[in-house]
Amino acid sequence: MKLSMIRSACGSLRIHSARSGSRVSGFTRRCPPVGPANSRMILRTASATSSGGTNPKLSVNFGKLSQNDDGFECDSSLREVVQSTKEAMLALHRRNPAIQPLLAIIQAGEVDGLLEINKKMAVRIGLNITQICLAKECSEDDIVEEVLKLNEDPRVHGVYLHLPPASLTTRVLNTLKPEKDVDGISDLNIGRLVRGDLSKGFVPPIASAVLDLLEKHDASLEMKTVLLVGGEGPLGVSLQCLIERSGMVVLKSHWSSNNLQRQVMQADALVLFGAGNMEVPPAWVNAGAALIRCEPTLETDEHAIETGIGYLTAAYRTQNVVRSCSRWVQEQQYQPWHLHSLKLQPLTPVPSDIAISRAQTPKPVDQLAEEIGLLPEELEAYGRSKAKVRLSLLDRLHKQPDGKYVLVAGITPTPLGEGKSTVTIGLVQALSAHLQLNSFACLRQPSQGPTFGVKGGAAGGGYAQVIPMEEFNLHLTGDIHAITAANNLVAAAIDARMLHEATQTDKALFNRLVPSVNGARRFSPIQISRLRRLGINKIDPASLSPEEISTFVRLDLDPSKITWQRVLDTNDRFLRKITVGQASTEKGQARETGFDIAVASEIMAILALADSLVDMKNRLARMVVGTSRSGQPITAEDLGVSGALAVLMKDAIKPTLMQTLEGTPVFVHAGPFANIAHGNSSVLADKLALKLVGRDGFVVTEAGFGADIGMEKFFNIKCRASGLRPNAVVLVATVRALKMHGGGPNVSAGAPLPKEYIDENLSLVAGGCRSNLRKQIQIAHLFGVPVVVALNVFKTDTQAEIDLVCEIAKECGASEAVPCHHWAQGGRGSIQLAKAVHEAASRTSDFQFLYNTEMPIVEKIRTIAQKVYGADDIELTPEAKAKIDYYNQQGYGSLPICMAKTHLSLSHMPNKKGVPTGFVLPIRDVRASIGAGFIYPLVGTMSTMPGLPTRPCFYDIDLDPVTEEITGLF
Amino acid sequence: MKLSMIRSACGSLRIHSARSGSRVSGFTRRCPPVGPANSRMILRTASATSSGGTNPKLSVNFGKLSQNDDGFECDSSLREVVQSTKEAMLALHRRNPAIQPLLAIIQAGEVDGLLEINKKMAVRIGLNITQICLAKECSEDDIVEEVLKLNEDPRVHGVYLHLPPASLTTRVLNTLKPEKDVDGISDLNIGRLVRGDLSKGFVPPIASAVLDLLEKHDASLEMKTVLLVGGEGPLGVSLQCLIERSGMVVLKSHWSSNNLQRQVMQADALVLFGAGNMEVPPAWVNAGAALIRCEPTLETDEHAIETGIGYLTAAYRTQNVVRSCSRWVQEQQYQPWHLHSLKLQPLTPVPSDIAISRAQTPKPVDQLAEEIGLLPEELEAYGRSKAKVRLSLLDRLHKQPDGKYVLVAGITPTPLGEGKSTVTIGLVQALSAHLQLNSFACLRQPSQGPTFGVKGGAAGGGYAQVIPMEEFNLHLTGDIHAITAANNLVAAAIDARMLHEATQTDKALFNRLVPSVNGARRFSPIQISRLRRLGINKIDPASLSPEEISTFVRLDLDPSKITWQRVLDTNDRFLRKITVGQASTEKGQARETGFDIAVASEIMAILALADSLVDMKNRLARMVVGTSRSGQPITAEDLGVSGALAVLMKDAIKPTLMQTLEGTPVFVHAGPFANIAHGNSSVLADKLALKLVGRDGFVVTEAGFGADIGMEKFFNIKCRASGLRPNAVVLVATVRALKMHGGGPNVSAGAPLPKEYIDENLSLVAGGCRSNLRKQIQIAHLFGVPVVVALNVFKTDTQAEIDLVCEIAKECGASEAVPCHHWAQGGRGSIQLAKAVHEAASRTSDFQFLYNTEMPIVEKIRTIAQKVYGADDIELTPEAKAKIDYYNQQGYGSLPICMAKTHLSLSHMPNKKGVPTGFVLPIRDVRASIGAGFIYPLVGTMSTMPGLPTRPCFYDIDLDPVTEEITGLF
Repeated sequence: MKLSMIRSACGSLRIHSARSGSRVSGFTRRCPPVGPANSRMILRTASATSSGGTNPKLSVNFGKLSQNDDGFECDSSLREVVQSTKEAMLALHRRNPAIQPLLAIIQAGEVDGLLEINKKMAVRIGLNITQICLAKECSEDDIVEEVLKLNEDPRVHGVYLHLPPASLTTRVLNTLKPEKDVDGISDLNIGRLVRGDLSKGFVPPIASAVLDLLEKHDASLEMKTVLLVGGEGPLGVSLQCLIERSGMVVLKSHWSSNNLQRQVMQADALVLFGAGNMEVPPAWVNAGAALIRCEPTLETDEHAIETGIGYLTAAYRTQNVVRSCSRWVQEQQYQPWHLHSLKLQPLTPVPSDIAISRAQTPKPVDQLAEEIGLLPEELEAYGRSKAKVRLSLLDRLHKQPDGKYVLVAGITPTPLGEGKSTVTIGLVQALSAHLQLNSFACLRQPSQGPTFGVKGGAAGGGYAQVIPMEEFNLHLTGDIHAITAANNLVAAAIDARMLHEATQTDKALFNRLVPSVNGARRFSPIQISRLRRLGINKIDPASLSPEEISTFVRLDLDPSKITWQRVLDTNDRFLRKITVGQASTEKGQARETGFDIAVASEIMAILALADSLVDMKNRLARMVVGTSRSGQPITAEDLGVSGALAVLMKDAIKPTLMQTLEGTPVFVHAGPFANIAHGNSSVLADKLALKLVGRDGFVVTEAGFGADIGMEKFFNIKCRASGLRPNAVVLVATVRALKMHGGGPNVSAGAPLPKEYIDENLSLVAGGCRSNLRKQIQIAHLFGVPVVVALNVFKTDTQAEIDLVCEIAKECGASEAVPCHHWAQGGRGSIQLAKAVHEAASRTSDFQFLYNTEMPIVEKIRTIAQKVYGADDIELTPEAKAKIDYYNQQGYGSLPICMAKTHLSLSHMPNKKGVPTGFVLPIRDVRASIGAGFIYPLVGTMSTMPGLPTRPCFYDIDLDPVTEEITGLF
Repeated sequence: MKLSMIRSACGSLRIHSARSGSRVSGFTRRCPPVGPANSRMILRTASATSSGGTNPKLSVNFGKLSQNDDGFECDSSLREVVQSTKEAMLALHRRNPAIQPLLAIIQAGEVDGLLEINKKMAVRIGLNITQICLAKECSEDDIVEEVLKLNEDPRVHGVYLHLPPASLTTRVLNTLKPEKDVDGISDLNIGRLVRGDLSKGFVPPIASAVLDLLEKHDASLEMKTVLLVGGEGPLGVSLQCLIERSGMVVLKSHWSSNNLQRQVMQADALVLFGAGNMEVPPAWVNAGAALIRCEPTLETDEHAIETGIGYLTAAYRTQNVVRSCSRWVQEQQYQPWHLHSLKLQPLTPVPSDIAISRAQTPKPVDQLAEEIGLLPEELEAYGRSKAKVRLSLLDRLHKQPDGKYVLVAGITPTPLGEGKSTVTIGLVQALSAHLQLNSFACLRQPSQGPTFGVKGGAAGGGYAQVIPMEEFNLHLTGDIHAITAANNLVAAAIDARMLHEATQTDKALFNRLVPSVNGARRFSPIQISRLRRLGINKIDPASLSPEEISTFVRLDLDPSKITWQRVLDTNDRFLRKITVGQASTEKGQARETGFDIAVASEIMAILALADSLVDMKNRLARMVVGTSRSGQPITAEDLGVSGALAVLMKDAIKPTLMQTLEGTPVFVHAGPFANIAHGNSSVLADKLALKLVGRDGFVVTEAGFGADIGMEKFFNIKCRASGLRPNAVVLVATVRALKMHGGGPNVSAGAPLPKEYIDENLSLVAGGCRSNLRKQIQIAHLFGVPVVVALNVFKTDTQAEIDLVCEIAKECGASEAVPCHHWAQGGRGSIQLAKAVHEAASRTSDFQFLYNTEMPIVEKIRTIAQKVYGADDIELTPEAKAKIDYYNQQGYGSLPICMAKTHLSLSHMPNKKGVPTGFVLPIRDVRASIGAGFIYPLVGTMSTMPGLPTRPCFYDIDLDPVTEEITGLF
């Protein structure tokens, strides 16, 4: 590398009018040392004289891309930046081959040479460019509109506002998202630079260029004085900070300063900011001083550009774009949590649930989302404390290993309660807030009906709750309302179709179903699907034969074989059995039917089992609503309604994010009725959560009813559908419930609790442990999953009782058995449980299904009855047998089984506590949810519509219209 | 004021270890000019020598609060800041007497002297203080948690992080809301200061203090050199920017600089940043130079504090708090709009509605909200493009004058359509986006049922739409779902109560309704309300006589006189008439009833008419659901359910903010069924919008059906309830519809349009104008409101037809009549209409009701029939007469009238177009919505549950599961 030595410097300032824009240009001069070059930046003066010489026009090329070898070798800095940026591009591509960094340029008026440099440079680096050309006289609004679009466009990684300074208003500058502000001109990025935090913002490219030139000056400028002349704006400040941080001393001067000459003469380097027709007489400039010009201009002066630092600045701009893109890619990766837990200071006695909930201020949901590594664009807030999470998360994190998967199940329920939900919530509070292990609770959305009936809230209780509990218990984000709307649209379609078929000829039906629009008849896609299922492979409506038309237009539903019920999310017992169609307009087509509670809709079961929007849509289309008179199943797609159902359910498929009292994350999603469906929250919420918690995190979900029902269905139905494998089961028990299983007396609501349940009674406790608890542990072991017993402690429990339960539970094969005090203490009360779960889930699990779905339906039912319930055998009614034959014939034989059995006993007899034996399980009927994908045998009568008691909860539920506080929810 | 003159300066640096915190202290010295004082800051040196003197310990008091008069007079700056801050406080109090500026201090470890100074100063100014004391070893999380709480607390106007520097991490600094960062230390505020925008951020108090001292130096420092020693951090940068901006020259130096001596000697002022045990030898200091020390320390050294600039800094901190509070108060005031409209580039031919909607990217709803002056805390986002707006806005802007109030009504509807919604939306697009007049459209939320039936969307059409139209047409923010849930809870409560009363003794009912809880029996508040209504003024359940118990527990509803129906938001014709309670569990209590479409619920009418949460709750409680066997009305409160209804409706009462295709704001709120209710959107949305648009803005809302129905109810019912007065009516007509009113042939769906409607036919047009259009204009004039006729132009309309309509409309008394092209052109096509509306609304309106509510019910009905419909008289069935007698007897006689009449004719005969005459209006029945507050006479049979056609819309509605795009909505 050759050096041209100049000991004396002289220079002139190129004068440009700064009418309408900013451009950087400039030149640098320095005196290299005599001897070997230690600088990679070399420049040539067009002409130079000795110090004090009079040649007033010094032209120095710098940063020129041209590779001419006529003595110019001043592009080493540029080559270096280009090279390192290209390498960064390569690294980016290696990590993410699909990524394509994109620089957006907003430009007003005519294109100028500087813009061309930037575009050339971007092309050279391999950036994509998009250029938005605005009129010269464009308004602030016009610019803001474009900036907003670029902000929202995920393909854009950097925005270059190539606009006149007057257009760079506060509003424009601060509308631009700081993460796309590659020129570092927004207030936030300026502040970051000044404070020295370069991890997020961007150094203005021109500042980088100047600093680069200074740092590569032939003579080290460390501790030397750099004079900035005319750099009053934020760019000057940024530059000053950078120069100072790299060890030089900065002086600043106005062009109008009286001391300018003295300062120039003392400076080791000069950085001149464009100043109209100001000049620094060459004679002033110190011998060997570096000289850099940053000159605002927009004139199309090719010479000015060639001699400017425009190329180097452009190169640093591309570097910032690539950096922005790398950050974006980095952001798309799995982010470790920075969970900020909320402090809990439990009171004694424990206040009401709603009082506890209200006393805690939930974190804003967008903050919670950020803490757990969700991106802003993955969140759809619904108010301040709940948000839907988009399924695109699954794509983003598809390479991320899942966390541990833990199921909370219970012993057979008694009227004394077990508290599975509180255990679930207490466990994640302990894991996340006390052991600093990422964890997520995935809960069912409760039905709103019972909230106003007898049950009250379902958000946990005491110091283990989801907050705000009233949001959790009421409309939430509208999923159940969406299900109600979708379910009832199907019902309305069924009855309306039967009426229309009953009152119209084939031709009239066909003319209406396939109307001529502007003279053309066309099948809609949904009708073509039906034609295909009917074996009619035609797409021209005119080509159908009369028989084909009849087959197509007539679903011919058998009114006595319609299985679809209407639903409402209200406890309305009078709708259990009704007659519809009694108005004269329905022309005598009255029929008996009924309403179920909304969560009993098959659409709820589908929501819970779907693993994508496509899957949900397909399941909705497959739903069988009844049978034709000729015995064919009729689906939602046959009714033409399945697309509309998907539209109604498009938001419901996104899980809702909330938080516990300790600020740990919770998904609330789906709540299929455990009586006739599988009673587990959604597959999608679990999948999202398993990605979010990371490899060492925990997802804790809950199964409805006792382990014999909820857990069995969780394993055989939900895990089969999702492909997920559980790592541990937490089995919840209470001393009181165990006493009842051990032979304690019955209890009745309102009556005082028998003393057996209040006083210590070790033999009843032991009886319950050795019967029901042991059996439920064994059931979990059938599936090869380790069990931790969680004893939910009540204040009447004695230490001896607690110890006894834990001792026997371990005898019975539990990995661990621990008392939990979450209700009174929050997560702190469940630390022991959390540690036990952590330990159990670290073991290798040997999960297996209980049955192969290819087994005959009857065999699958028998397997569950014998192995899980302990029945001697099963006994089917002729009706049940006929249904099974029909399902086999229709090709539904290989669906899993979803038993509809009482949850109050392992048997079909609700009063038989402990472990009943010697019984034959009666199968009264067998039904199918084809869309959801299971067969459900009915063992006895299952109510699908609860009622209201004489004094429902709503008597106490009230709203203070001034404070908007709710009372009476519990 | 006296000056002590010191021409020479010497000083020492007080040395403090900077272990664990930051504190400012310092002193200043300066040489005042000989002659009259122009500085209000005076100081005295304890001892002074001539220049170059050797006395090394100079102690100068500055900013001390003590008023000792021993020659120290150095607190003039302080006095001035204190004085001006107190004045700002007074000004604040004058504007808002309730305001109380609050400084929150977060402090870790022990309280130090500096903190005490700040507290004293705050007290002196009259600020409230709240101090959060954290442990010395508190974590970043602890600090962040407190900061977040203070961020959210609207009472806190400034936060002083009195923490060790190590605790002021990037996360902590940038968690603090910039608008509460009164120390100006967040990145954003630093950036603002550097860029020179002081309108939003805060100058760090210590920087203000230093600048103050420099500016008040006895000798002007303009153009003089200020040397900052050791000010490397952001504070130094901020200070440098400020000093430079006030015209001084800044030099910066490290303590370790070789040039320090030379620089010090050249400086006219010195600002020394704490530097451990560094000293500037007094001999270096220029004679007459100002000397200011900013020293970090937390030691409790009273002397250091007394001699520091701590007081002045504290005073500037309080000034920032008061400024922050002023800004907050300012923000609470009405904000002028900065609406950024979206550009529209209409295509020809006009694409489908959903294609147009999808092609436009809506602004983020929080941006829209900001543009129209909503505060972030008034917004509850539901996803990205819609948000609920809190009613607290009404309190905030209660002093703000309302804008102009414009109603869009139509001529009598025909199957050919008029386009009131598109006119409404086109009008606001024109007003806001083209005439830059603030405007808001207030629209009804459409029922979801018809969206899947025949009607399609209701978000407008063509280039005059609300976007995203699919959000508008589907669940929106769940209001109708909430109404469904509330309505059906009442229904379930009715039937369950009848069952329980039928099957239980008085005593059993009483025991259940007023149960003993922990040995005590208590009435709930809602039960006490019922007792009061029954005239039983007792609150002890034990004191009720058996008769009183019976009266209390038995609603004794007459099953044949239950008026409450269930509802669903589904077009389900088979639910029009049903029998419920046919299951054996309902013990033979079956009865006939039916479902209405959800928007026909009285709760919807209440939502539309309520003007606050209190009002809504009261109306819900008053709703009459049926009559007892003894003829008493039974209310929702009697059922004990009204509190729960308010809880279910608590979010529904907040209007939903959306936007038009041109980005102008829209409220969507309530949509009572025009058949049996008043068919107008909500009072609350109008009230909020009238405040937001400001005095010169416009709120445009739409009345369902023709002006004879929708407008009449808008005036007589809605305006009566709200107290709002309309300024103008826009009456929408189309050439086609006018032709039909002028005698054109009937049309039928599917059949080709008769040529009369395609070809020019001036005589039919004139006929329609001179009949129906003239009559509807006259109806509006009955109320004293000016009318602008908007002719919604179709492409088949000829210029002659258009001109004729406008000409006749003006003849008939319209203020103006103009053609509109919004469907094809968006707002640009409605500019003429917008100008006409602007003009009409500027006139003084002479609004009056059509009738006085104290008139007898029959007279009110007759007035409407004769004056509005043009009937000769009315004729009541005996049933109707009996009902009127009953309502009079119950005290409902003074309610307004809500006619339930066909919308297809001014008469009760749908086929009579134009202006029917010579008819007697038959009143078949009369009903009452007591909660909503109107009597509704039934003229003929009104359907309250639509049905589905043979090929409902849903056949075409579909969701692409990959792009999530919806097709088939129109």
